[in-house]
Amino acid sequence: MRDIAVFSGSAHPELAAQICEQLGVPLLPAKVSRFANDCLEVQLQGNCRERDVFLIQPLVPPVQENLVELLFMLDAARGASAGRITVVLPHYAYARSDKKDAPRISIGGRLVADLLQTAGADRILAMTLHSPQVHGFFSVPVDHLHALRELAHHFRGYDLSDTVVVSPDLGNAKEAAAFARMLGIEVAAGAKQRFADDRVVISSVIGEVADRDVIVLDDEIAKGSTVFELLNRLRERNVRSVRVACTHGLFSGDAIARLSAEKEIKEIVCTNTVPIAPGKATEKLTVLSVAPALAEAMRRIHNGESVSALFG
Amino acid sequence: MRDIAVFSGSAHPELAAQICEQLGVPLLPAKVSRFANDCLEVQLQGNCRERDVFLIQPLVPPVQENLVELLFMLDAARGASAGRITVVLPHYAYARSDKKDAPRISIGGRLVADLLQTAGADRILAMTLHSPQVHGFFSVPVDHLHALRELAHHFRGYDLSDTVVVSPDLGNAKEAAAFARMLGIEVAAGAKQRFADDRVVISSVIGEVADRDVIVLDDEIAKGSTVFELLNRLRERNVRSVRVACTHGLFSGDAIARLSAEKEIKEIVCTNTVPIAPGKATEKLTVLSVAPALAEAMRRIHNGESVSALFG
Amino acid sequence: MRDIAVFSGSAHPELAAQICEQLGVPLLPAKVSRFANDCLEVQLQGNCRERDVFLIQPLVPPVQENLVELLFMLDAARGASAGRITVVLPHYAYARSDKKDAPRISIGGRLVADLLQTAGADRILAMTLHSPQVHGFFSVPVDHLHALRELAHHFRGYDLSDTVVVSPDLGNAKEAAAFARMLGIEVAAGAKQRFADDRVVISSVIGEVADRDVIVLDDEIAKGSTVFELLNRLRERNVRSVRVACTHGLFSGDAIARLSAEKEIKEIVCTNTVPIAPGKATEKLTVLSVAPALAEAMRRIHNGESVSALFG
Amino acid sequence: MRDIAVFSGSAHPELAAQICEQLGVPLLPAKVSRFANDCLEVQLQGNCRERDVFLIQPLVPPVQENLVELLFMLDAARGASAGRITVVLPHYAYARSDKKDAPRISIGGRLVADLLQTAGADRILAMTLHSPQVHGFFSVPVDHLHALRELAHHFRGYDLSDTVVVSPDLGNAKEAAAFARMLGIEVAAGAKQRFADDRVVISSVIGEVADRDVIVLDDEIAKGSTVFELLNRLRERNVRSVRVACTHGLFSGDAIARLSAEKEIKEIVCTNTVPIAPGKATEKLTVLSVAPALAEAMRRIHNGESVSALFG
Amino acid sequence: MRDIAVFSGSAHPELAAQICEQLGVPLLPAKVSRFANDCLEVQLQGNCRERDVFLIQPLVPPVQENLVELLFMLDAARGASAGRITVVLPHYAYARSDKKDAPRISIGGRLVADLLQTAGADRILAMTLHSPQVHGFFSVPVDHLHALRELAHHFRGYDLSDTVVVSPDLGNAKEAAAFARMLGIEVAAGAKQRFADDRVVISSVIGEVADRDVIVLDDEIAKGSTVFELLNRLRERNVRSVRVACTHGLFSGDAIARLSAEKEIKEIVCTNTVPIAPGKATEKLTVLSVAPALAEAMRRIHNGESVSALFG
Amino acid sequence: MRDIAVFSGSAHPELAAQICEQLGVPLLPAKVSRFANDCLEVQLQGNCRERDVFLIQPLVPPVQENLVELLFMLDAARGASAGRITVVLPHYAYARSDKKDAPRISIGGRLVADLLQTAGADRILAMTLHSPQVHGFFSVPVDHLHALRELAHHFRGYDLSDTVVVSPDLGNAKEAAAFARMLGIEVAAGAKQRFADDRVVISSVIGEVADRDVIVLDDEIAKGSTVFELLNRLRERNVRSVRVACTHGLFSGDAIARLSAEKEIKEIVCTNTVPIAPGKATEKLTVLSVAPALAEAMRRIHNGESVSALFG
Repeated sequence: MRDIAVFSGSAHPELAAQICEQLGVPLLPAKVSRFANDCLEVQLQGNCRERDVFLIQPLVPPVQENLVELLFMLDAARGASAGRITVVLPHYAYARSDKKDAPRISIGGRLVADLLQTAGADRILAMTLHSPQVHGFFSVPVDHLHALRELAHHFRGYDLSDTVVVSPDLGNAKEAAAFARMLGIEVAAGAKQRFADDRVVISSVIGEVADRDVIVLDDEIAKGSTVFELLNRLRERNVRSVRVACTHGLFSGDAIARLSAEKEIKEIVCTNTVPIAPGKATEKLTVLSVAPALAEAMRRIHNGESVSALFG
Repeated sequence: MRDIAVFSGSAHPELAAQICEQLGVPLLPAKVSRFANDCLEVQLQGNCRERDVFLIQPLVPPVQENLVELLFMLDAARGASAGRITVVLPHYAYARSDKKDAPRISIGGRLVADLLQTAGADRILAMTLHSPQVHGFFSVPVDHLHALRELAHHFRGYDLSDTVVVSPDLGNAKEAAAFARMLGIEVAAGAKQRFADDRVVISSVIGEVADRDVIVLDDEIAKGSTVFELLNRLRERNVRSVRVACTHGLFSGDAIARLSAEKEIKEIVCTNTVPIAPGKATEKLTVLSVAPALAEAMRRIHNGESVSALFG
Repeated sequence: MRDIAVFSGSAHPELAAQICEQLGVPLLPAKVSRFANDCLEVQLQGNCRERDVFLIQPLVPPVQENLVELLFMLDAARGASAGRITVVLPHYAYARSDKKDAPRISIGGRLVADLLQTAGADRILAMTLHSPQVHGFFSVPVDHLHALRELAHHFRGYDLSDTVVVSPDLGNAKEAAAFARMLGIEVAAGAKQRFADDRVVISSVIGEVADRDVIVLDDEIAKGSTVFELLNRLRERNVRSVRVACTHGLFSGDAIARLSAEKEIKEIVCTNTVPIAPGKATEKLTVLSVAPALAEAMRRIHNGESVSALFG
Repeated sequence: MRDIAVFSGSAHPELAAQICEQLGVPLLPAKVSRFANDCLEVQLQGNCRERDVFLIQPLVPPVQENLVELLFMLDAARGASAGRITVVLPHYAYARSDKKDAPRISIGGRLVADLLQTAGADRILAMTLHSPQVHGFFSVPVDHLHALRELAHHFRGYDLSDTVVVSPDLGNAKEAAAFARMLGIEVAAGAKQRFADDRVVISSVIGEVADRDVIVLDDEIAKGSTVFELLNRLRERNVRSVRVACTHGLFSGDAIARLSAEKEIKEIVCTNTVPIAPGKATEKLTVLSVAPALAEAMRRIHNGESVSALFG
Repeated sequence: MRDIAVFSGSAHPELAAQICEQLGVPLLPAKVSRFANDCLEVQLQGNCRERDVFLIQPLVPPVQENLVELLFMLDAARGASAGRITVVLPHYAYARSDKKDAPRISIGGRLVADLLQTAGADRILAMTLHSPQVHGFFSVPVDHLHALRELAHHFRGYDLSDTVVVSPDLGNAKEAAAFARMLGIEVAAGAKQRFADDRVVISSVIGEVADRDVIVLDDEIAKGSTVFELLNRLRERNVRSVRVACTHGLFSGDAIARLSAEKEIKEIVCTNTVPIAPGKATEKLTVLSVAPALAEAMRRIHNGESVSALFG
Repeated sequence: MRDIAVFSGSAHPELAAQICEQLGVPLLPAKVSRFANDCLEVQLQGNCRERDVFLIQPLVPPVQENLVELLFMLDAARGASAGRITVVLPHYAYARSDKKDAPRISIGGRLVADLLQTAGADRILAMTLHSPQVHGFFSVPVDHLHALRELAHHFRGYDLSDTVVVSPDLGNAKEAAAFARMLGIEVAAGAKQRFADDRVVISSVIGEVADRDVIVLDDEIAKGSTVFELLNRLRERNVRSVRVACTHGLFSGDAIARLSAEKEIKEIVCTNTVPIAPGKATEKLTVLSVAPALAEAMRRIHNGESVSALFG
């Protein structure tokens, strides 16, 4: 088979390095120049001709910069006659923009999918997309991994006899229920209403949580408003303890510090799909690595083996 | 502006006739021939040149027949130089096939969207799509109406003082919560797991339902398995009465009769997005018409007015 | 080269099994589920990644069902990262819909070609298309086999000294002339006019047929109206005997029985591109197998050898 | 409606001028420059913005020059923001290249259709395409006129009591039969085989022609080899007289002179879809004008009226 | 004609307001939301249905932010059924990335053109593109204005008797020569070599400049390195005075201040295609407005009148 | 890797033969038939299935004939299931048509690029395109070679101590400057204005040329008007001698003879990207071969090695 060639953009070079270490292949450099007029130019510094090229770039803040950089990497790889180009998207921020809930708004999840294909993407390797339908926004093949396995492995180390999984939102409750089944415990959910981006109200928690240890599960945590709002409801219901778990730890601003300051919150668990700024971590933060899972998926994609067989 | 030309396929001519009556325009005939080798040929029997053509065809059973007929109607309209072609899809059955929950399966919701565009659709008018993300499967403009307004108007005629809206599935609970807010009442939800197409288990109902009047809300009811399973849970919780409401009343087999035979079920309410086979209706069935809403949306589309302003 | 993976849809599993036996490869299962709302879902049950996938599905009645199933098989194979997808179309019913002979009608042959490509077809292997121009409706490569070789081999077993090939229609006379040259005999043709799908008039037979043994050659026989009408003209011209030959034996309704009941007709010869319903066969029916030809073509496609070199 | 703007390429300015006279609109100039390196540049010398642009250019010899010029006219019109661009193709030479009758050959009819669309054609107005399936090679709307009406009108002026229409080729016999029905007379056909481009053999004429006046009908006559070969067969069958009719009079080389020199040939009738080189005409040549038919079709296209209603 | 609807992105609202004032139409608001995860969402706050929509957004720093915002505006307008969408690009930063001068680099000028079309752009109105070939990177119609007219009008106010136009680069000398002809004076050019983005060497100035008043003309000035390098060569040749003129005044960092500090430089003239940060302007800076030109072009586009007739 | 298959069109079989000799592979025949109606048909006479196909065809006069022939070769190769198709374009005449310098004109460079891709081109190997931006007109990968290396090697054989490179046009001066740097000498340029295709005026020569030996460098020479006009200016400046160099020697009409007749012109050097008609060559003409460079690039493309590494 054609050789593999792995490049990383600026978004998360540490994760790319870990993946390449797992794969036993070198991480090839990509030179990104910024001109005086703020335009980017990307040069891939390694032969791409007829190779099986992987471009690793989570769409994390600064999202617009990382997105355009990724589009230029795709264009450069295509122009350099790559045999096949797979975009490895450990985090796809625009997946949240997946429906038209107001007139005349953009649907970013679909638009960015189209842009990636226009720029030359042949396939996508994604992780924990905000909704499973986002898969269908791409017309190229998508392999969609979940980090529930990694999260579940972590929580199995605790006594879960009085524990319940709580989804902050009914919209995410199905995934929380699946996670609860993996741990053999029950599920509850908050009835969340979002009035604007900043104000979230959880009017009630549906299900039994009183006197329980709670694992709050969400796909991503940014400012943490939802978690804080849920925490108010959980306190009113006298929960015993709270652990917060998510795949994508965006933690904008001082979210980690503010979450860590809450005494009910015993632990905050996320994966490394999104880079954690140095100095932001606290004692309560646990970061699990998805590099082995992504590396194994890339190996299987390269060898033409089934990815779903392993991860589902 | 260019003249309007409205055609109906075989799927639901009654609805098309009601819409045209509302609009005050004639329903133009479409001749569908079936050859000895089972192939279809469609001839639109009215001038399409430069006209604003609307094709009304819900994708209801027999779905494959109705889908292919619609594709041929699109091809005929395009070949006949229609100025613009809008597909009016009161029901889009393949919207349920919106994610890849097993390896190597088709995603029908996206594929059928692509097929409609390949055959010539310029825009879509849909109603209560199974998930809001399905909107993004189309790259042509979509106007997406909801029938909650019609359903809410109906239920406001009842005493709702001890009533609760119950979603059979956490996955649909967000829409049920919105409906409950429209009626000023509370919401609850079942934790549903689908093991195969036929076996559905609702392990618990999350929220308060005991001694209440229940309105079960789902987007569509086909065999009714989910409603029957939910009914078992609701009985165990001693609910007072049950009314079942949905937008799309597919009611396969003898579902209406079997639902009507349950004494707790006082009423089954649906809209006419899907034709009800004559002889299937029972005393307990109430069918609300969406023809005024669809006609008004078509009028606005034709005149270039905002659809979202009215329906949202 | 990449491994081959052969799947069959529901249309003609017997032919698919024969082809796989010839090729010495297993026929992989495709699971087709039909939901309560009549939607299909296809799951290919065998690894497709980077494989050379062949999907065998003649478009025979029920055509719409078989067509949509094929589109979903294509979508599933594409989504599962097939290396290349070849549709094996032993019969392409919509090839008859190849021209616009009335205003505002669909051209099914072109539309279905576009749909197959939209759903992911990379190439087509077809047999005896209704007109050679149908080849050009596809923009992907097409290998087009003919069954004249198999039919000629069969008829060479007879005494052909006083035999003439008769095409029921001037439109098909060129193919009949080629067949006659293969057998070293003469050709004649009926002047056919189709007034509607059901009424066919052959006003005259152009060429010498009196006191001859006749081989009627058509590409496909459905209801048989054309053959019966031709038989009337041939009787008037005192032919000695009639044998009917075609590639695609669709034989709708009781066509075989009715043809067999005519005493002038000594034999009806077709191939197995279309499945013959059990119980329909009569003593006069001979079915030749095209499985060896299709298997050899698939082997050559897989190996990158010339198909035309063999079949032409 | 938007104004009409009609341009003519170099292929047939006389026909374009006649059409514009019929329409009562000016023929706008198109400046075609040829650089020293033999490249063309086209400038349309009239405002195209938002206008309903018609480009008149039959694809006649020199075909390659005329084709490329037409592609450049399309590009110029598109770049100049034409509202809609219709290509008026009174003759489409590549329509003859409509099937793959040898391995690894081009299918010009489909390829040129794709090229026209790539360059910006929104619709096509064509006349007497070599086979009706060519219509399907275009994915944009096609209006397809026939000149049989004009030809029939001409021949109705003669005594047709002992006349028969003869198609030189079984492949064109269906059209000849339709023409014969328009005149109320009988039809016959030659069994033609083409061994290479130059050698044509008609082994026999199927049907009654002895002692008859013959109208030979073909869609186009280029070198006339087919007509000469047919003439030999007709002489052997003692026909009384021959008139030759076709839509497209290409008449390469000295074909008109050689046909006129045959004493059996009383008249050669064609239309002006193809320009007749001055000095080539003989007394026996009659040229009918299709300008009124094309102008009327263009008027109807511009006004959004049905073309098929008139011509069919 | 359909109504006009003009929206501005965040890049240069002042210019958009000036254009709308010229046109006498309101500037409609576009609401750009930024979520906690740094994703954008655009909502156009004015009806777009069937309207002639113009989106004004120069691609100026921050280029990536402005580009993605523009793509989302396009998507929103398309999804809201705009009749036609014209992107008004007073400055197109990526036009400089127009060739592949190193292996495996991106060609931003072409890629961004493709992205704009993917997101829904129907046509482009641009000004002074870095090279005229960039026009061809778009497959949609482009109207390409030049600001030379505005610049020439300004300089005609001076005594030009001993003045020469100097292009800093041979690559831009053709445009400088055209500008010199408009002013009726001579032209000279520097032989520039760019070693990296930061180091520019002008080895010599070709043409007569000694004891002359010099107008340096470039299409855009960012850091000003090229001008400073040219100034060194001009000083060595004892020029009398220098005025610097460009269309696009990007002026990154303290470029204006540093240019103004050079005593030979009497004036810096640019247009308002790029916003000048408040506080950056100096006494020597003159900013000419292109709003009248852009507004007139938009008016003509909307009315279907020729743009080239005016501007060329 | 898949086998290589090289075909040549009619444009320049000698160059194709030289390339194949260098590569050590056979030149496969392509049969081009011209029908009586002037249509072309191309048959590639060698197996293409899954092969790495190269089609060698410079777009030289007769350009339209050669272009259409190339399009048909592409169509034939694609239809014959070529694995990959690379067009080898030693000369791309339409590259000169790269901008819109008048209203409503075609941009041939982009249009022809689109046509080649429509017909099936997967990649392009080009030489000395008229402007580097033409690269971006293709959306498929382009390898772009320059012949400056071959030209410089030739001129290094001379005493260059008093020599200057002169570009006839400021627009081409950048390339002349690069060539001068390769030879370690100075550069000058003419200020050319083209009034129409035939009249060229060079108003002045910018830079030092008096008493020097001049190498005039242009990318292509067709009629030679520009060189003659430049010669007038050079004579006025008393140059010592002139050698004319270009990559593409189109030499239309008697250009070589007329150039050779000028006594100041000592030599005319070009490469064999364009065939020189036999009998046109004079003693002063030197033709360098680019076959080794093209062959090496093709070898590298076939093997997936970097082309830029060698040529840049």
